[in-house]
Amino acid sequence: MTTPVGRVACDLTVTVDGYAAGTGQSEERPFGEDGADGWGGRLHGWMFEQSEENRAELDRMTAAKAYVMGRNMFGPVRGAWDRPWNGWWGDEPPFHAPVFVLTHHPRDPQPMAGSTVFSFVTDGVEAALERARAAAGGGDVSVLGGATTVNQYLAAGLIDELRLHIAPFTLGAGTRLFDGVPALELERTQIRVASTVTHVTYRVLSRIR
Amino acid sequence: MTTPVGRVACDLTVTVDGYAAGTGQSEERPFGEDGADGWGGRLHGWMFEQSEENRAELDRMTAAKAYVMGRNMFGPVRGAWDRPWNGWWGDEPPFHAPVFVLTHHPRDPQPMAGSTVFSFVTDGVEAALERARAAAGGGDVSVLGGATTVNQYLAAGLIDELRLHIAPFTLGAGTRLFDGVPALELERTQIRVASTVTHVTYRVLSRIR
Ligand SMILES: NC(=O)c1ccc[n+]([C@@H]2O[C@H](COP(=O)([O-])OP(=O)(O)OC[C@H]3O[C@@H](n4cnc5c(N)ncnc54)[C@H](OP(=O)(O)O)[C@@H]3O)[C@@H](O)[C@H]2O)c1
Ligand SMILES: NC(=O)c1ccc[n+]([C@@H]2O[C@H](COP(=O)([O-])OP(=O)(O)OC[C@H]3O[C@@H](n4cnc5c(N)ncnc54)[C@H](OP(=O)(O)O)[C@@H]3O)[C@@H](O)[C@H]2O)c1
Repeated sequence: MTTPVGRVACDLTVTVDGYAAGTGQSEERPFGEDGADGWGGRLHGWMFEQSEENRAELDRMTAAKAYVMGRNMFGPVRGAWDRPWNGWWGDEPPFHAPVFVLTHHPRDPQPMAGSTVFSFVTDGVEAALERARAAAGGGDVSVLGGATTVNQYLAAGLIDELRLHIAPFTLGAGTRLFDGVPALELERTQIRVASTVTHVTYRVLSRIR
Repeated sequence: MTTPVGRVACDLTVTVDGYAAGTGQSEERPFGEDGADGWGGRLHGWMFEQSEENRAELDRMTAAKAYVMGRNMFGPVRGAWDRPWNGWWGDEPPFHAPVFVLTHHPRDPQPMAGSTVFSFVTDGVEAALERARAAAGGGDVSVLGGATTVNQYLAAGLIDELRLHIAPFTLGAGTRLFDGVPALELERTQIRVASTVTHVTYRVLSRIR
């Protein structure tokens, strides 16, 4: 008997110039400075103000059986875990599955309501993915960001499917998707044009050269 | 009487990571190294092998009444004009209109068959655009590339409409659209999904901040 192996997908909201976050992330501005007021800012309006219209993409984002994210996506705490922080998502995060948080700073697993458990992985992207794959038991794994994390997975050839949500502005500064990522052959497998964002899915086929 | 003022559009083929050309441009490889054999390479297949399918976009590219391009788009000659070079396009280029080539190296205008005239502009992007606007007589002006040229126009706030033709691969190196371009509010005004490329038109609304 072989265990079916799920896909590794990555969901990321980016500007037209490829930024997944502005500079200056803080507890008040989780996505950094993107020139708009308010929590979600200009990048993430499609998720918050336009959630009904974008229900299909939002549902797909939370359909994985395990998740990987970077420590900066998890929160604004840097360096040692010197103050309580259990993520942006309240007591019952929308993941309902194991979430592996990449960090250089060890921390005990943090169980939340609704079967989300945040585990902290200090031995790199491959180890985090291995743990997520095992936890997903053949289901899909989703790498949620930020760009620093996604770029490492793309460079290592570990992403099967890249789901971009492209917001109509440029930022000029911040963390950029594809920074340090080599030449990759892609196949556009799906596209849906919503009122402001464009949802494009690419399958990652192979490295070029 | 006021002269109607045409739009300033820019047409550019880019990879998913925003490159408009690979590294190592040469007479044999006008678009630089992009991991494919052949003249057009991986970036420009939609224009050459798939020209029928993409006729509308190609026609729109050559509908302007005057053009601006960078010296590297015009050809592979660098430094002084020390050998004959009249562009990649043969005796009758597809522009049929005045083309202003940005360069630091003065050269006399070069008339071609079919009313294309290449003029060489050494006093910067605003001067080149002014001359193109005057030559277009109220018609549209198109900035054709490369990215070095387009980025200067975007940064100066001089592009009204950005028409991107997005090819399904990443390059990781080369000249990148949006390099040095500040935060800009855009509006997606048109999108057409062709078999390989995605054609997206953005209107440039304003600078953010
Ligand atoms: N646009 C979107 O869809 C989207 C998605 C997610 C997040 N975001 C936003 O993006 C920003 C965060 O993104 P980011 O790119 O700055 O950071 P990130 O990828 O979320 O996190 C980077 C941090 O994770 C840890 N890390 C990453 N790789 C590691 C490795 N191989 N080994 C050990 N630790 C590792 C390091 O933290 P330590 O060294 O400090 O432990 C590193 O500084 C936030 O503003 C967030 O809100 C946007
Ligand atoms: N993907 C596409 O749609 C597309 C479109 C066009 C071109 N391309 C490709 O892109 C590559 C060329 O692009 P590129 O970004 O390297 O260069 P480019 O923009 O075509 O040309 C840059 C050169 O133009 C001159 N120049 C630009 N701005 C100037 C200014 N303000 N004042 C004076 N001179 C100025 C300079 O030449 P000097 O100092 O040497 O005179 C500069 O090195 C080629 O491989 C080309 O085939 C692709």
